[in-house]
Formats: sequence, C-alpha cells, structure tokens
Amino acid sequence: MISFVAPSGTGKTSLVEQVIAALIEGGLNVAAVKHDAHRIELDTEGKDSWRMRQAGASGTILAGQDQLAWMGSPEDRPQLGDLVDLFFPRADVVIVEGYRSAGLPTVLVKRPEVNDPTWHQPDPELILTTVHPSAVDETVSAVLTYIASVR
Amino acid sequence: MISFVAPSGTGKTSLVEQVIAALIEGGLNVAAVKHDAHRIELDTEGKDSWRMRQAGASGTILAGQDQLAWMGSPEDRPQLGDLVDLFFPRADVVIVEGYRSAGLPTVLVKRPEVNDPTWHQPDPELILTTVHPSAVDETVSAVLTYIASVR
Repeated sequence: MISFVAPSGTGKTSLVEQVIAALIEGGLNVAAVKHDAHRIELDTEGKDSWRMRQAGASGTILAGQDQLAWMGSPEDRPQLGDLVDLFFPRADVVIVEGYRSAGLPTVLVKRPEVNDPTWHQPDPELILTTVHPSAVDETVSAVLTYIASVR
Repeated sequence: MISFVAPSGTGKTSLVEQVIAALIEGGLNVAAVKHDAHRIELDTEGKDSWRMRQAGASGTILAGQDQLAWMGSPEDRPQLGDLVDLFFPRADVVIVEGYRSAGLPTVLVKRPEVNDPTWHQPDPELILTTVHPSAVDETVSAVLTYIASVR
C-alpha cells in the first residue's frame, strides 16, 4: 500500500489516475482505496437495505457480482489492511488516499503555488518522495522502487 | 446466518423487517446481507472511484466512517462468510437474502396464492420452517430455536 497525500486543490486525483494507468501498462495489478469522510450516497430511502437499517439491523450489506455496499456502525468499521486482504487478493500495489493515520509510505503531492499553512503535513519519516502533480514518470518510478524494496 | 427465501411478490422483505425488529427487541445484535444481481448504483460517472476504475484499477474501495462501497471484478468477489466475519463482528444472527447456493439454513416464506411452478424450490434438507409472510412470531421462534441449537 502506498498513500498519496496532498493539500486540497493540488490535482492529486488526476496524478493518481495517470500513475495507475502507467503501472497497469507495466503489467501490475493495481487497486485503489479512498477514504471519504463525507457520506457516500448508498442509503437510499425505501430501498431494502435502508428498510433493514430502519428495522434496527446493526449493519447491512448489499452485494452484487462486482459491487458491494456496507452500511453499519463506526465501531464495526473494518481495518484498512483487512479490507485490502479481502477485496484485493490479486493486487500488486494498492494506492490509498486518505487514511493518514495508517502510517503508510507516502507520496506527497505538492504545487508551490498551493500553500496552506494550516494543512497538516505528513510525518517526514513516511514520505517516499515529494512530487509535482504533473510528474507522472517520476511518481511511477518512486512507486516501482518502493514495491521492489518490499518484495 | 439464516437465509430467507421466497418466490417474488410474497412479501418477504416486510416479514424480514419485522423479524429483525423483534429479534433486536429481544436483545440480539442482528445484521443483514442481501444479494442483488442487479447493479447497485455506486459507480457514478465522474466521481473519484469511477475515475480510478476508468484508469484501469482492478478494484476500488470508497470508505467512510459507517459506509463502504467496493467495485471490482467478479473473480475478486469475497465469500459470504468472510464478509460476515469482517463487517459484522458483533452480530448474534445474520439474516441473508439471496445466496441460494451457500447452503444456509432456510426460512421458506410462502403464500398459497403465490404459486409459480417455474420457481426453484430450496433444498428440503435446508428448510428450518415454512411460514406465511404474516407469521412474524412463528418465524422469530424458529430463528431463536435455530440460534440456540448452534450455540
């Protein structure tokens, strides 16, 4: 797992897309996890999963062939590592956005013109590299070097 | 885990809701899983998770405090038992709809007036009880008896 961290508005998602595409072109199986503190729009009123939550179920899962939705209590929230083991059994690399507290090796994405002094910097010891959002090749190299080092 | 099975139009979901509420009132922690072969509306065009899938990621997870969405390949689809272990660590009973092939103990919900000869009956050996959709108390008793028998 490698974490991508950036101040808001840096262009991180666009870089992540291009890095994923490049890693796949290089023959790797790549998966992605994004932590989103905002509500995901899963729990539609009137749907069966919503009805079961309304009935008081501590958690509900709606599962399809290639999609799954879970709604439950924060205390039952699975750990990142367990999610990756269960859902990405074949992945060579997992790109993570968010989960700052997980202590993952981090690619810090920065543009000189985006400078928010209130933004919480990642732990310097975790930073693999600091890149500009346009630096796709440089970022891919850093990711490949890291993967090779832990294999 | 207990599976609820019924021909379409029987009123199963309404029974399941009432059974869940009654079990919770009895002090149990109840969770629910529904298999839905139709697409869940997760993968909204333009959203970050969609963008990462477009970039070729073999799977993506969008995770919040109390919700999670996975999109991936059918070959990476987790087993029902692994999902229950990961997402419902505190559940005393898990009500399952769908997953007919999992061979779970089954409550068959039937109304005499709904009779579809093409409907695939569950394996008789799996059937705990056959109930009318209005038979909440009877169903709750059957579930409690089953739970007691496996504890």
